[in-house]
Amino acid sequence: MAGFKTNSTIASCGGKLLKLNHESKVLKSAMDVNVFLPPAAVDGKKKVPVLFFLSGLTCTPQNCSEKGFFQSAAAQHGIAIVYPDTSPRGSDHPGENDSWDFGSGAGFYINATEKPWSDNYNMYDYVVSELPEALFEEFPQLDADRVSITGHSMGGHGALTLFLRNPGKYKSVSAFSPISNPINAPWGIKAFSGYFGEQNKAKWAEHDATELIKKYSGPSPEILIDVGTGDQFYKDKQLLPENLVEAANDSANYKGKVNLRLQPDYDHSYYFISSFAKDHVEHAAKYLL
Amino acid sequence: MAGFKTNSTIASCGGKLLKLNHESKVLKSAMDVNVFLPPAAVDGKKKVPVLFFLSGLTCTPQNCSEKGFFQSAAAQHGIAIVYPDTSPRGSDHPGENDSWDFGSGAGFYINATEKPWSDNYNMYDYVVSELPEALFEEFPQLDADRVSITGHSMGGHGALTLFLRNPGKYKSVSAFSPISNPINAPWGIKAFSGYFGEQNKAKWAEHDATELIKKYSGPSPEILIDVGTGDQFYKDKQLLPENLVEAANDSANYKGKVNLRLQPDYDHSYYFISSFAKDHVEHAAKYLL
Repeated sequence: MAGFKTNSTIASCGGKLLKLNHESKVLKSAMDVNVFLPPAAVDGKKKVPVLFFLSGLTCTPQNCSEKGFFQSAAAQHGIAIVYPDTSPRGSDHPGENDSWDFGSGAGFYINATEKPWSDNYNMYDYVVSELPEALFEEFPQLDADRVSITGHSMGGHGALTLFLRNPGKYKSVSAFSPISNPINAPWGIKAFSGYFGEQNKAKWAEHDATELIKKYSGPSPEILIDVGTGDQFYKDKQLLPENLVEAANDSANYKGKVNLRLQPDYDHSYYFISSFAKDHVEHAAKYLL
Repeated sequence: MAGFKTNSTIASCGGKLLKLNHESKVLKSAMDVNVFLPPAAVDGKKKVPVLFFLSGLTCTPQNCSEKGFFQSAAAQHGIAIVYPDTSPRGSDHPGENDSWDFGSGAGFYINATEKPWSDNYNMYDYVVSELPEALFEEFPQLDADRVSITGHSMGGHGALTLFLRNPGKYKSVSAFSPISNPINAPWGIKAFSGYFGEQNKAKWAEHDATELIKKYSGPSPEILIDVGTGDQFYKDKQLLPENLVEAANDSANYKGKVNLRLQPDYDHSYYFISSFAKDHVEHAAKYLL
């Protein structure tokens, strides 16, 4: 067994939400992770595809499990959902808990190169490799060959960059209000300066969806992105989804294939996510089923 | 205008969730209340029916707005949802904040007769009269002639008793894990002892759904009740829905018309509520549309 402890098993939408905890080697941290098993997977006999949901700044696996309402559509389509945490916890690095947009709860789905973060802020390796490998070992009903990814805000950045850095690994990607061009946005500049160093701009570009899509070659399923026009972070140019669309339209592989939907009046909250969760599950289902 | 202050207006499921606050005379308290306007009512031109959701112990209007996920089905059917708070706030009665199941957050939808609670713990009058009258004045698009009611736990008790005490006022009623026979359950005994006095058993019976249904005469739409078999409060005999069913089946009006669904493994949480919210909106829609 891959060492998961089950803290609770909760009936939800005909399936089961498992609240798990396990020891991550790459993060040197005990990590919470929630897994929703659709009805088809609860008895463990049928292999089901998997959709990873990467959460935004300050979130834990609980926020989207409680408020994102992916479970209904996931149950209907027979897709499992994995909700990872957003950073190592309790590392006690100086300053780790001083900001809501850096350190704890703000791992940015990268492997840090700057000390002290380079010791264990390896959320990229965790989400791409360690966590799924452990889950596929623990739950044989999860199909390692049919995995898609989505996320919100910082997690939208995570979903897009993990997809674009690993051609073919994820069958599809979508995002809610993603940080689409972090090297040009205050949140991204702060995070990449801290985790990669201010000078290492080549490294920054390796984790910027807009930069990555320019050079991407690989399978190119449509990318679905929803952003609310009432989202203050969108207005403050933290998200910059148009930069991603523009880069995609200039690219060989993704010309015309980033579907950016600007949703009138919607904000950055889980009210927004839950309003469109069904669409994102159905987007993934097109490529997973 | 009826004196509502709008703290926020949030896009949700094609409609708008309004987070309101107003001064209640009967509660002598500023009260939060959330109202979801479905798309059909947002421009204010079309009258829509209204479903009240009464929350359980410790809850505010926020819990179910965020986690109950009624908005999706309500938007689809063109039904407004009203989420009242569960007690006056900040009254400073001795002991008001000492228990999670009495006083603040635990108004039980009654008018208290014992001091000091009789001063302002009048959630019955608030939910039956003052709040809806103020809302119908403020929002002419809410149809005062088409109102239904539902609720969870203590709020399920509230929904059932308000329906049974006011024949014809509510077009339908349903409940999630309701306290169905409070005079025989620890929560109800504690609350009714405190709010009505230990001796006043006649008063207790006036707010007990199982007692009320025995004598009920009036319109008798089917009552939908969902209870999870994994619900610890059900196992602990706080809810006693079978007592209500038995009393209904012995009654003239409600024989065979309480549809109690025991949902395997579900607990008492919002994961349970959100899993069946759609069914309860559709139940109300049968009588409202």
